[in-house]
Amino acid sequence: MEFVNTLKVVDIGIDTHQEPVVYMRSDCHICLSEGFTASSRVILSYKEIDVIATINVVDESVLEPGNAGLSKIAMRRLGVTDGTTICVSHAPVVTSLAAVRKKIFGHKLSDDEINGVIKDISAHRYSDIEIASFLSACAGSRLDVDEIVALTQAMVSCGKRLKWSHADMVLDKHCIGGLPGNRTTPLVVSIVSAAGLTIPKTSSRAITSPAGTADTMEALTSVNLSIGQIQTVVAQTHGCLAWGGSVNLSPADDLLIRIERALDLDGEGQLIASVLSKKIAAGSTHAVIDIPVGPTAKVRTNKEAERLSSLFTQVGAACGIQIRCLITDGTQPVGRGIGPVEEARDVLSVLQGKPEAPEDLCERALFLAAHLFFLTDPESFNRSLDRARAILDSGAAWKQFQRIVDAQGGFKALPKANFYKTENASLTGVLQAIDNRQLARLAKLAGAPNTAAAGLRLHKSVGDIVKQGEPLFTLFSDTEGELQYAQTYYLQSDIFAIGDET
Amino acid sequence: MEFVNTLKVVDIGIDTHQEPVVYMRSDCHICLSEGFTASSRVILSYKEIDVIATINVVDESVLEPGNAGLSKIAMRRLGVTDGTTICVSHAPVVTSLAAVRKKIFGHKLSDDEINGVIKDISAHRYSDIEIASFLSACAGSRLDVDEIVALTQAMVSCGKRLKWSHADMVLDKHCIGGLPGNRTTPLVVSIVSAAGLTIPKTSSRAITSPAGTADTMEALTSVNLSIGQIQTVVAQTHGCLAWGGSVNLSPADDLLIRIERALDLDGEGQLIASVLSKKIAAGSTHAVIDIPVGPTAKVRTNKEAERLSSLFTQVGAACGIQIRCLITDGTQPVGRGIGPVEEARDVLSVLQGKPEAPEDLCERALFLAAHLFFLTDPESFNRSLDRARAILDSGAAWKQFQRIVDAQGGFKALPKANFYKTENASLTGVLQAIDNRQLARLAKLAGAPNTAAAGLRLHKSVGDIVKQGEPLFTLFSDTEGELQYAQTYYLQSDIFAIGDET
Repeated sequence: MEFVNTLKVVDIGIDTHQEPVVYMRSDCHICLSEGFTASSRVILSYKEIDVIATINVVDESVLEPGNAGLSKIAMRRLGVTDGTTICVSHAPVVTSLAAVRKKIFGHKLSDDEINGVIKDISAHRYSDIEIASFLSACAGSRLDVDEIVALTQAMVSCGKRLKWSHADMVLDKHCIGGLPGNRTTPLVVSIVSAAGLTIPKTSSRAITSPAGTADTMEALTSVNLSIGQIQTVVAQTHGCLAWGGSVNLSPADDLLIRIERALDLDGEGQLIASVLSKKIAAGSTHAVIDIPVGPTAKVRTNKEAERLSSLFTQVGAACGIQIRCLITDGTQPVGRGIGPVEEARDVLSVLQGKPEAPEDLCERALFLAAHLFFLTDPESFNRSLDRARAILDSGAAWKQFQRIVDAQGGFKALPKANFYKTENASLTGVLQAIDNRQLARLAKLAGAPNTAAAGLRLHKSVGDIVKQGEPLFTLFSDTEGELQYAQTYYLQSDIFAIGDET
Repeated sequence: MEFVNTLKVVDIGIDTHQEPVVYMRSDCHICLSEGFTASSRVILSYKEIDVIATINVVDESVLEPGNAGLSKIAMRRLGVTDGTTICVSHAPVVTSLAAVRKKIFGHKLSDDEINGVIKDISAHRYSDIEIASFLSACAGSRLDVDEIVALTQAMVSCGKRLKWSHADMVLDKHCIGGLPGNRTTPLVVSIVSAAGLTIPKTSSRAITSPAGTADTMEALTSVNLSIGQIQTVVAQTHGCLAWGGSVNLSPADDLLIRIERALDLDGEGQLIASVLSKKIAAGSTHAVIDIPVGPTAKVRTNKEAERLSSLFTQVGAACGIQIRCLITDGTQPVGRGIGPVEEARDVLSVLQGKPEAPEDLCERALFLAAHLFFLTDPESFNRSLDRARAILDSGAAWKQFQRIVDAQGGFKALPKANFYKTENASLTGVLQAIDNRQLARLAKLAGAPNTAAAGLRLHKSVGDIVKQGEPLFTLFSDTEGELQYAQTYYLQSDIFAIGDET
C-alpha cells in the first residue's frame, strides 16, 4: 500500500536553535494516517538528505492544508526553501540507543557500540533528551580508560582531520579552564613557533568564561580562518592562533557540549575525549595540558587533578598522542585584565617586556612553553626553561607574534570601552583571596566577551597589602546599564577577601 | 536600575505538547537587554503563576513588536489569553539540580534531596533534558531501598490522596505489564468486591500496549470519573473500574513517564515508585503485584523478577502498604482477544461462564483474587482460592460487575470493526511459541487501542497442534489501509513458531 506522505515547505520564521521542528496541522493527512501528534519524532527527507525533527501541531489559521512549516535549522540542514516538496515519515529506530540503555544499566560499552552512538549523534539522529541521557550515563567516573579511548577515536573519526606532512612533531597546548585571565596561549605559540617548532593552535571562544583565546585574539586580528588559510599561516610562521569553530574538527563534540552546558555537567570521560579528539583531529603529536587547581577553579583538589592527569596521559598514549599534564596554581586569576581586550593588553605587555607586564602570566607561559620544548627534547627541563625565557627576553617571541598576526590579516586597533568605573577597597588589610567564579561573572555582567572592550582590570593581587580607599579594580563597559548591573552585583558579592593576616 | 520586561500575549496557534515555548522577536527589548537567544530558558509570570519556558526566536513578520507568542501549554499553565500582559525574566537557578548532579556522580541522595527534585519536577521547573538526566542517573539499579522509599513518598506528597474512612482494608492489584490480553483486573475487582471487600481500582490507558484496562473498560462503560464519582461508585458497590488519569494521583510520575517512554527506559526504582505512589495515593493498604516472566515479557528471568519482588515488598513495608508479588507465567499472551473490544469479550465470557471463555485468563484472575483474600485473611490459600472460584462460578462476580458498570453509567454496546481478515497457518506442526512484543505491535498496527474494535483474536494457543490452512488468528480494523498495514507487518514478522516437537 502507498501513503502520500509529501508536504510543501513553508518558512514559518521560527528559530528553534539546534532542535529541528516541523509544524503540521492536526488535520494533516500524514498526521491522521500515521498517528503523529505534537512531540512525535519524524524523518524529513529531501533528495539524499534526511533530518529528524519533532512535530509541533499548529492551528488551521497558521498553515494552508498540504503545507509543513520548518524551523530555521530544519530548513538549513535539509537544504530547502519555501515551496520545496519534502517527505515526512516515521523516524527509524536508532539502534545505537540500545548502547545508551546498556550504559545506563551500568555495563561497559565496546568500541563498536561507542562508535555507533557518536556516529548517530553527529548525524543528528539523537533528540536532546537522548543526548542528555547518554551524557548522564557516562558522567562521573562511569567511563573506564578503554571507553574514553573509544569515545575519543569515535569523535575524531566523524570530523575533519588536519595533516602536517612537513612536520614530524606537531605541538599543542590546552587549559581545562576555570581561571580568569589565564591567557597563556598567544605567548606559548609565539615562543614555541619562534624556535621553529610547529604549533598550529586552534582555540575556542568563551563558553561560560569572560573570554576564550579566540575572543582575545579576535580583538587583535582575524581568527575566523578556513583550513586552507590555517595551512598557509602555519607554512609561513610554524604557528597560528585561529578559532577552531569554523574548522569542524569534532562535530559530535559540539553537539554534546551544547547539552552538557545546559545540564551544567562536566563528565571526566567526556572532558578528556572532547579535548583529545580536537587535538588529534588538529594533527597534534605532543600536547601539554594545564590543569589549574584551586578552591574556586574547575578542579578543586590535587587528588582530582592527579586522577584527571593520569587518565589524560593513558588515553593520549592509546590514541597516539603524547600528553604531559601540568597541575598548576589555580587559587587566583592570572594577569591583571579580564575580558578580551584587557587580556590582550596583558599579552602584549608580556611580549613587549613592558614594566607593567604581569609576572604571573609571563611565568606560566614560560613554564608551559618549556614543557613543550622538554616533551620534544627531554634532556633537561632547566635548559628548556632557559630556552623559552631567552626567546621571550630577546624579543624574538614578540617578532614572531607580529609575523603570525600579519599572516592572519594584520593588527586591528584595540577598541575602547565607553564607560569605566574604579572600585576602591572599603577597608585596610591583606588581600587574602579572590573568588574566580564571581570575578568571571562580574566581567560577564559588564559585557564580556560579547563586547570585546568590556571586562575589568585588577589593581591588586592575592598577598598584596590594600589600604582603605585604594583602587581594587576598574570595570569597563559599553553601556551605562551594564556598568550599573555589574556594580550592583559587585556590591552583593564576596569577590575579594581582605583580612588581617597574610 | 529597572528593565521593562513585559510583553503582550499572542496565541500563536502552536501545540508544543508538554514543553512550554515562548516566541519572541530577536530585536525584542527583553532579548537584547537580558542576552536571551533561541533555546534560553526564561520564566513567564502572570499574577501568582510562574511558568518556565524555552525561547524560540521568530522573524519580524511573525510577531508585532512588544508581543510574545505562547504555545498552547504555556497559555494553559499560565492561565492567560490573547492580549494579557506577562513578565519575562531569567529563569531562576533550580537548586535541586545539584541533587541530580550528585546522583549522576554516583552518590546516595537524602530524603530531602529527592523530595526537592520531585517537588521541582511537579512544579514544571525542569526542562525535558533535565528530567532525562535525572531518570538516566537513577535507572538500572542505581537507587537503593531508602532512595526508592523517599522517591515513592515524595511522589505521593505532591499529588492528591484518596481516603476511605469506612474501610479498614483497601485492596488493589497491579500488573507490571508486557503480556498482551492479560486483562484480569475487571475479573479480580468483581470477585473481590462481591465478597464485600473494598477495591477502588483506578487503571491506566495503554502506554505502549494494544490496550490498558481503562481502554478495555471504556469499550463497556464510562471510566472518566471524578474523585467524587469514584467515591459514590465505591460506596455503592465496594469497587470501581475507573481511569486513573483524571484523578491526578501522582502528577510527578505523569511527567516522568512521558520522558521515560521517549527514552524507552524503565528503571527499577522508578517503576516501583511509580506503581506504589499511585497505590498509596489511592488509599490502598494491601496490594498484589503480578510480575509475568517470559522471554518476550517485560521481565525476562526469574532472578530479575525475584529482585523486583523483594524491592516491592521492602519499599511497600516502609511506606505502610502490604505488598504481595506474584511471579507468573509470561511466556504467551493471556486469553484470546487483543485490543480493547476483543479483550472485553474475553472478560465477559469468563464472567458469564461461557464455554468459549479462555481458561488461562480465568485461572489467572482466580489466582490473583485468591491472593488478595489470602493477604487480608492469611489462613489457607486453598480456602481463599475456593472462595474466589465459588464467587465466579455462582454468577455473583458477573452480578457484581453489572452493578459496578451500572454505577459508572451503564453498559455501552460493543463497537464492531469495519474490516476483518483471518490468517491461516502455512504449515502443519505444534505451536511452540508466540512472541508477545510482535503480537502487541500487530494489534497496534491494526489500530488498537485508539480504535476500540481494532485488534485481533487468536484461534490457537501455545502447545496446540496446528494444521496447514487452519485459522491462526483474525485481524480487526476500522480502515482497509490499517488492515493491510498490519498484514504486511505480519508477513515480515516471526510471531508464531510452529515446529515438529511439542
